[in-house]
Amino acid sequence: MLDNAAELRHFAPMTHFGDRLIDAVRAHGPLCVGLDPYAERIPKLFGDPGPEAVGRFSEAVVARLAGRVAVIKPQIALFEKWGPAGLAVLADLVGAARDLGLIVILDAKRGDIGATASGYAQAYLGPDAWLPVDAVTVNPYMGLDTLAPWLELADAAGRGVVVLARTSNPGAADLQDLDAGGAPVWERVAAALRPLVDARVGESGWSSVMAVVGATAPDEARRARALLPAAPFLVPGYGAQGATAADALAGGRGGDGVVVNSSRAVLYSRAAAEAGDMAAWSNAFDAAVETAKSDLAAASA
Amino acid sequence: MLDNAAELRHFAPMTHFGDRLIDAVRAHGPLCVGLDPYAERIPKLFGDPGPEAVGRFSEAVVARLAGRVAVIKPQIALFEKWGPAGLAVLADLVGAARDLGLIVILDAKRGDIGATASGYAQAYLGPDAWLPVDAVTVNPYMGLDTLAPWLELADAAGRGVVVLARTSNPGAADLQDLDAGGAPVWERVAAALRPLVDARVGESGWSSVMAVVGATAPDEARRARALLPAAPFLVPGYGAQGATAADALAGGRGGDGVVVNSSRAVLYSRAAAEAGDMAAWSNAFDAAVETAKSDLAAASA
Repeated sequence: MLDNAAELRHFAPMTHFGDRLIDAVRAHGPLCVGLDPYAERIPKLFGDPGPEAVGRFSEAVVARLAGRVAVIKPQIALFEKWGPAGLAVLADLVGAARDLGLIVILDAKRGDIGATASGYAQAYLGPDAWLPVDAVTVNPYMGLDTLAPWLELADAAGRGVVVLARTSNPGAADLQDLDAGGAPVWERVAAALRPLVDARVGESGWSSVMAVVGATAPDEARRARALLPAAPFLVPGYGAQGATAADALAGGRGGDGVVVNSSRAVLYSRAAAEAGDMAAWSNAFDAAVETAKSDLAAASA
Repeated sequence: MLDNAAELRHFAPMTHFGDRLIDAVRAHGPLCVGLDPYAERIPKLFGDPGPEAVGRFSEAVVARLAGRVAVIKPQIALFEKWGPAGLAVLADLVGAARDLGLIVILDAKRGDIGATASGYAQAYLGPDAWLPVDAVTVNPYMGLDTLAPWLELADAAGRGVVVLARTSNPGAADLQDLDAGGAPVWERVAAALRPLVDARVGESGWSSVMAVVGATAPDEARRARALLPAAPFLVPGYGAQGATAADALAGGRGGDGVVVNSSRAVLYSRAAAEAGDMAAWSNAFDAAVETAKSDLAAASA
């Protein structure tokens, strides 16, 4: 019976993703913990490097985050690295996280022509998804038609789509900042997304289509907000990549609509790395989460 | 003993990818068969839709292609759609294809920041790859730094990296054709790739870094060739997407350096769809392969 209930919950259509997201962020703050289980950084406590240690570590992280943060963002690459066994671990983990009430954004950055994108979208947003998540990151390089299969399935099930606009890595400027008729390419992408965003605004005033806008460029976040007033932003680059809490929140609208990702600073604090047992690790991990939450709360006050 | 030999062959460094590719294309012609196993299009002969039918169909395709074409290009989305079971099927298939001497380009279009890209690259090009292929397609939207982990592993093992430049789908123009200072974005991408391409030229005069340049725009293929004289092109869009053989070969250099993909026209000919048994399917499939090969051979003559 419990198993059935859990399964129904995974696959059943949900209420509007943008509304659910904003509610959760208002309740728990804007911190999203990026679940990037680098095998070589997982404390030895969780076992030797491999998919089992990735699973044990990720489960422990998810259990401690439940009720404390709104959103987790598993990075599929670090599970995919281990092959089918790693992806089976990810499926268990996502199920556990959603049962615990966490919103799960799968960081997959997929992007392909329609028929192919449909295969990916069915895997993650479809009614028979093997890895049913709340939203997925996608790459816009191949054009707006490649987003259609994602949007169709997301719309049908109260899920979201998160489109890369301006990323936070050092090389992001190579293509995204090319001047395309007086505005950088990423702004042209954001402007092109606006109709898709505005067509999907929920009761909260926020859309189920999000944009990735890096924290390392707060001026750009403000421009992105002007271009996409209703899109919740997923903001990478806070913490280990050098952006401050104020930078990370620069794209907010009335203190709302921003989800700030932190991966390494939360997952791999020195204290957690040095913990000798699970109790010490739990304390160190909780402290790193609270540090990031307080830092963001102070900057939004 | 045989198992060990097969495993050594999968993981051992190989000779230069560009040289291997050009040799194989000279021997078998430019046709690359895109392995896109759409569940709803696989003949009932292979079983009910699901990963088992995908596996049986794909194995039959690979067995018939061995010795006839140079390259196959499995589309990971259509295996990933089925979850870990689908990816296990893909791993078996890629092993079989490489044992049969086919060059395997994994169509994955991955793209992410360095540490994450490294996870993906280890999955497909690394010494411990669970799915060791000859080359992988990658997406350049996040910048040149995101290509580095792929190139590093590819260089160490005689493998290749295939970067999206100008794709063949209807929406490709949305971003790729934006005017960025007198040249479209995709040309700026191609120009930025040139040093990476030229640094990896083998004895054949061809690089281990390829570019995707769609067949639906032959003028663009000629411009791409001028920008990247040493990059072998992977050309989608021939056949079902409407481009002719001459269009598809427009980016060649002295009749060389072009790999032309066909997926649906080869995999799902009407005759193959209507085949009542395996012998009839095999005949129909072989005929579709020969039709595409002859069409391309006639256009290059």
